[in-house]
Amino acid sequence: MVDIATRVWNHKWKIDPIVRSLIDTDFYKLLMCQSIFRNKPDTNVVFSLINRSTKVRLADLVDEGELREQLDHVRSVTLTRGESTWLRGNTFYGKRQMFRPDFMEWFEGLRLPAYHLEKRDGQFELTFEGRWPEVMLWEIPALSVLMELRSRAVLNDMGKFELQVLYARAMTRLWEKIERLRRIEGLKIADFGTRRRHGFLWQDWCVQAMQEGLGAKFTGTSNCRIAMRRDIEAIGTNAHELPMVYSALADTDEELRQAPYRVLADWHEEHEGNLRIILPDTYGTEGFLKNAPDWLAGWTGIRIDSGDPAEGAEIAIRWWQDRGEDPRKKLVIFSDGLDVEKIEELYARFHGRVKVSFGWGTMLTNDFRGLVAEDALAPFSLVCKAVSANGRPTVKLSDNPAKATGPKDEIERYRRIFGVGEQKVQEVLV
Amino acid sequence: MVDIATRVWNHKWKIDPIVRSLIDTDFYKLLMCQSIFRNKPDTNVVFSLINRSTKVRLADLVDEGELREQLDHVRSVTLTRGESTWLRGNTFYGKRQMFRPDFMEWFEGLRLPAYHLEKRDGQFELTFEGRWPEVMLWEIPALSVLMELRSRAVLNDMGKFELQVLYARAMTRLWEKIERLRRIEGLKIADFGTRRRHGFLWQDWCVQAMQEGLGAKFTGTSNCRIAMRRDIEAIGTNAHELPMVYSALADTDEELRQAPYRVLADWHEEHEGNLRIILPDTYGTEGFLKNAPDWLAGWTGIRIDSGDPAEGAEIAIRWWQDRGEDPRKKLVIFSDGLDVEKIEELYARFHGRVKVSFGWGTMLTNDFRGLVAEDALAPFSLVCKAVSANGRPTVKLSDNPAKATGPKDEIERYRRIFGVGEQKVQEVLV
Repeated sequence: MVDIATRVWNHKWKIDPIVRSLIDTDFYKLLMCQSIFRNKPDTNVVFSLINRSTKVRLADLVDEGELREQLDHVRSVTLTRGESTWLRGNTFYGKRQMFRPDFMEWFEGLRLPAYHLEKRDGQFELTFEGRWPEVMLWEIPALSVLMELRSRAVLNDMGKFELQVLYARAMTRLWEKIERLRRIEGLKIADFGTRRRHGFLWQDWCVQAMQEGLGAKFTGTSNCRIAMRRDIEAIGTNAHELPMVYSALADTDEELRQAPYRVLADWHEEHEGNLRIILPDTYGTEGFLKNAPDWLAGWTGIRIDSGDPAEGAEIAIRWWQDRGEDPRKKLVIFSDGLDVEKIEELYARFHGRVKVSFGWGTMLTNDFRGLVAEDALAPFSLVCKAVSANGRPTVKLSDNPAKATGPKDEIERYRRIFGVGEQKVQEVLV
Repeated sequence: MVDIATRVWNHKWKIDPIVRSLIDTDFYKLLMCQSIFRNKPDTNVVFSLINRSTKVRLADLVDEGELREQLDHVRSVTLTRGESTWLRGNTFYGKRQMFRPDFMEWFEGLRLPAYHLEKRDGQFELTFEGRWPEVMLWEIPALSVLMELRSRAVLNDMGKFELQVLYARAMTRLWEKIERLRRIEGLKIADFGTRRRHGFLWQDWCVQAMQEGLGAKFTGTSNCRIAMRRDIEAIGTNAHELPMVYSALADTDEELRQAPYRVLADWHEEHEGNLRIILPDTYGTEGFLKNAPDWLAGWTGIRIDSGDPAEGAEIAIRWWQDRGEDPRKKLVIFSDGLDVEKIEELYARFHGRVKVSFGWGTMLTNDFRGLVAEDALAPFSLVCKAVSANGRPTVKLSDNPAKATGPKDEIERYRRIFGVGEQKVQEVLV
C-alpha cells in the first residue's frame, strides 16, 4: 500500500534539503564551539570556502539558485528537542554532561548567521562573518551542501538502473576495503568522513556497513546526527581553527609563539582522558613539540593530520621518550590521506610501539573514483577555514607546504617565529 | 511514516511465498497448454524433477517442510481477474485473442494438481501425475520454488549489509554485461531466465535493467507475470515436451518417426508468423530437417537449443538453401548456454546471413558465480520433464548426448528410428 500521507507530505518540500539537522556536523565542532563560547565568545571571525582543486569548476556545475536555497534551508534549521536531549544526556568518552547547561541553552536558541555568496571565475566565493561560536558552525554544513550539490549535478542525467549500479559499485568497493580491514587484528578505526562525503545518505550507509563489517573494530563516527541515529559513539577532539584564531589574535611575536600552547592550556582545563589529544602540525610538528611545556607530554595522545604520517609518528615517539613518557601507553590517531593500504602499512609499522587509531575520511565516504565518465565524481579538496579574526589574517603552515594558508608575508613571519625549516611537499589529493 | 496496515497485513503471511501467480511462468507453457488442451486433453502424464548437478545436494540444503509449504501455496493460487484480462486482451506477436475463450474459462478455474515428494540420497524426488494440460503447468513453479529455496538457504546466515553487497556485486556484473551487449548494433535479445532464476525479485530486476540498458534491443521476457507488470512483450513458442509426449504415444515405429512432424502440423494449424519456430533437436537436428515435410521450410525460423549452436545454425542455413528458401529472411533463435561472449561470437558469425535473435537464460537471471563462499550460489542444472505419457516412457536425445533422457533401451530405439549417428558431447553446465 502507498502511504498517502507520506506522499502528500513529500509534495510540500520545495527542495530536497541536504542538511536537515544542526548536529549533522562533526563532534569536534561542538566541543570546540563550547570551548570558544566560554573562552572567546566575542571574537569576530571570517570563515571562507576554499576549493583547492581549482580544476573542479564548482560554479559551472552547481546552480547558484539551488545553492542559495540549500544554504537558506540550513539557516532555518534549529536544534530539535531530541537532539538536545541526546547531547545533554549522552556519555561522551565516558563523561556525562560533556556539554554544559549554559552552552546547551545558547545552542538551543541558535540559528546559523548570514552568508555572503558570489561567483568568480568558475568558483563560488562563500564567506561567513560574525561571532566565532556561531560562524564556526557553518564549516561542515557549507562543505556538505557543496559536496552533495556537486554529486547531484553529476548524477542528474543518469537512468534509474544506471544509478543503482553506480551505488552498487561504490558499495562493493567499500565492502572490499572493509573485508581487508577486518583482517587487521586489534584495529581501531572511526569515520571522519563528514566534510568530504558524497552525500548524507551515502555516509550513513558507509557507517552502517562499517558497523556490520568491522564490529568492535569500528569505534564510531565524527558525525553527531549519524551517531545519534545509529546509536554509536560520537568521535572527535579539536582542530586547527583553535590555534589559527588564537594566533591571529596575538599582539606580539612572543604572544604568537605561545598561542598554540594557550589553546591547549584552555583545553586542558576543560577536558581529560581521550579528549586530550595534541594536534601538533598547525605551525610545524617538530618545533611545536620541541618547545612544548612539560605537562603536554602527559596528554593521552596525538593526531597526525599532515606531512608524512609515519615520520610524524616517529617524531612524536621520540618526543615522548625524551620527556620520559612510555610511547606504548600513548594514542596516535592518523587522520590524513588514508586509504586501506596506508592504514595497513601504518598499523604494521606502529602496532605495539604505540596505541594506533585511525580517523578515516574521504576514501571512506567519497570513493567514487573512476565510476562515472570523466571521473566527474572523484573527490576534491574543498575546505572552509577561518581566514581572519578581529580583522587580522589567520595562517596555517602544517607539515606540508602545499597545505599552507594565509597571506604570503604572514606565512613567512610565522615560519620564522615557529622555526619551521625545510618541509617536504606532499601532493594534496583530498 | 510506517504504513501500519501494510505491516499488519504482512504479519498474516505464514510464509514468504515464492510463486504468487499462475502466470509467473514461461509464455510458451501457456501456448503449449492451450494446444494440448485442444489436441490431447486426456493424456495422462508424469512430470518429474531431475537435478542433473548431483553434487548440489538439494535435500540437505532445503528443509522438506519449507518445500511442502511453498508447493502447497502454489496449489492455492488461482488466476486473478487482472491476469485473465491481460491474457484475454493482450496482443501477442501482433495477434489479438491468442488465447481462446474455452481455454481461458478452463484456466480461470484451474488449481494445480497434487504433487508427490520424497527424499532420497540427498535429493528430492518430486513428481506430478495427471492430465497433461494441468500437470505441465507445474514445470516452471516447481523449478522456481526449488531454485529460490536453495538461494534462501545459502543466504540465510548473511548479514544485512553483506547481503546488500552481494546483490550490488551481482547487479554490477549484469550491468557490465549489458554495457557490452549495448555495443552490438542490431541486437535482439529476450529474457528466457525464469526456469533457472536466482529468485523472482532478482529476475524482475534483471528485466528492468535490460529495459533501461538495452532499450529497443531488449525484445521482451518469457515470464508472463513480469511482462504484465512491466508492460513489455511476452516471448516464447514451444518446447521439447510436445514431441516427447507425442512420440511416447506413438504405437508403431512409423508413427514414432512421424510424431515430431505431427506436433508441428498441429502447431501450424493454430499459429502463424513469429510463432512458427522450429525446435528441431529433440531427436537430432540433422535427421529431423532431412526428413521434414516441405511446408516446414516455409516456417519463420528455428530455435537452436542444444549441441554446438554455430553448427546447428549452419545446418539450418544449408537446409533452407536446399529447399529453395532465402536464409536471410529466416529467424535463428539461440537459447542454449548463452553468455555475453557467446552472444557476441554468434552475432558476429550469423548477422547478415540470417535474422539473429537470442533467448538469454541462466547467465542473465542467475549469475552469482563466485560471489559467496564455496561458490554455493553457482547455477546448477535442474529440470522438470515429462517422463511418461499414458504409461509409456518419454525420450529426449537432443544434439548433445549428455542431455539425453529416458530408459536406455528406448534411447537406443529412438536413435535407430531417427537415424542419429555420432554426437559430440557438450558439457552441461546449466
